[in-house]
Amino acid sequence: MTTDALPPHPDAFGVELPVWLREEIAAMPPRVPDAQERMRFVLHLAARSVEEGTGGPFAAMVLDRATGRVVSVGTNLVTGSGLSAAHAEVVTLSLAQARLGTHDLGAHGTEGLVLVISAQPCAMCLGAVIWSGVRAVDIAALGADVERITGFDEGPVPADWREQLEGRGIAVTTGRCETEALAVLEDYRARVDAGSSTLY
Amino acid sequence: MTTDALPPHPDAFGVELPVWLREEIAAMPPRVPDAQERMRFVLHLAARSVEEGTGGPFAAMVLDRATGRVVSVGTNLVTGSGLSAAHAEVVTLSLAQARLGTHDLGAHGTEGLVLVISAQPCAMCLGAVIWSGVRAVDIAALGADVERITGFDEGPVPADWREQLEGRGIAVTTGRCETEALAVLEDYRARVDAGSSTLY
Repeated sequence: MTTDALPPHPDAFGVELPVWLREEIAAMPPRVPDAQERMRFVLHLAARSVEEGTGGPFAAMVLDRATGRVVSVGTNLVTGSGLSAAHAEVVTLSLAQARLGTHDLGAHGTEGLVLVISAQPCAMCLGAVIWSGVRAVDIAALGADVERITGFDEGPVPADWREQLEGRGIAVTTGRCETEALAVLEDYRARVDAGSSTLY
Repeated sequence: MTTDALPPHPDAFGVELPVWLREEIAAMPPRVPDAQERMRFVLHLAARSVEEGTGGPFAAMVLDRATGRVVSVGTNLVTGSGLSAAHAEVVTLSLAQARLGTHDLGAHGTEGLVLVISAQPCAMCLGAVIWSGVRAVDIAALGADVERITGFDEGPVPADWREQLEGRGIAVTTGRCETEALAVLEDYRARVDAGSSTLY
C-alpha cells in the first residue's frame, strides 16, 4: 500500500490477546507467590508465543508483591497486533492498567506491583517500566544475551540501566531461571535459522 | 481498588481518540507539504490537548516524506486512556501502523515516513521511534527544555540520542518552531501552577 490510497484515519488502536493466551490466563491460579514458579510460567508463555506464531520470544506478568496476586499476563504481540510498540512489557503493563483502571500502578498495594519479565527490557520498555508505576522488576535473561542469541537490536539501553530503575524506587532482580530463559531464546533462534520462524 | 477484588483479566487494551481530536483530523487537509505548517499544526494540537484535559502538552504527526501526505495524527492520551505508554509518539506511530496495516513503517514510500513531534522523545519514545520504521524525526522543543519548564522526568535518554537515531538510518531535525513549542510548554506549566491542570 502506498500513502496515495489510504483507508480512513483510525479513531482508535489496540491489542487483542490471542485465543491461546486467553486460555492460559483462564487456567492459571489467581495467586503465584513463589518467584521461581512465576518466572517458569512467564518462560512457558515466551516459548508458546513463538510456537503459536503470535510474536517474539518474550513474556511478562504483573503481580502484587505482598500477596502474589496476578494482575496481568502478556506476551510480545508485535506481529499479531501489527504494532511495533506491543512488546511483552508494554502489553502486560497496559493490561494491568486497564484492569486496575489507572495509568499509575504505583498507587496499588502496600509493597506495590512487580513486573516479572523473561528478558531485560529494551530501550523502549525500560522507559515504559519507569512510567508504569511498578515498584520492582524481576528479570531472567540479560539484554546482552538476548542480542547475542537472537540478533535483536535492544536499542540505546544505558549502561547504568539498573541504577536508573533503582534511583526511581524500582527494585531490580536479574538472573532468575536464567538457564531456562536462554534455552527459550536459543530455541527461537534455531527456528529462525531453520526458516520456520521470522526474526521480528 | 486493591488487588484482592479485581475485575476479570482484560482480553484487550487500546486507545480511543477523543472527539475533539477526531474533529481536528476530519477537518485537516490530506497533505501538508510545508514543514513549518506541519509543526504549527502539531503545536496547535499539543495546546488543545491541555485545554481539553485529555493528556499532556504533546502531539505528533506521521507523514510521507516525499508527498507530504498525512498518515496519522495523535496527542498524549495518558490520562484519557489510562495507559502510561500512551505518549504522543506511541499513539501517533500506532495509528499510522493501524492505518497502513503493518508494524513496520519502513516499508512505505520511497523516502519513507517522517514523525513530526512537538518535543524530543523521552527514553521510552526514543525506543518506540527506532522500532517503528520511520525514516526521519522533526522535533520542536528539546528534552532539556521540557524538563526545565514542565518538571517532567524524561527518563534515561542517552547523551548521544541523535547519533543513536542517525546510526539506524533515521534523519533528525531539531528546533523547528522552537519558540512556539516552548510557549505551549510554558502555558501548560502556568496552568499547573495555577491549579487548573495536573502534572501528569
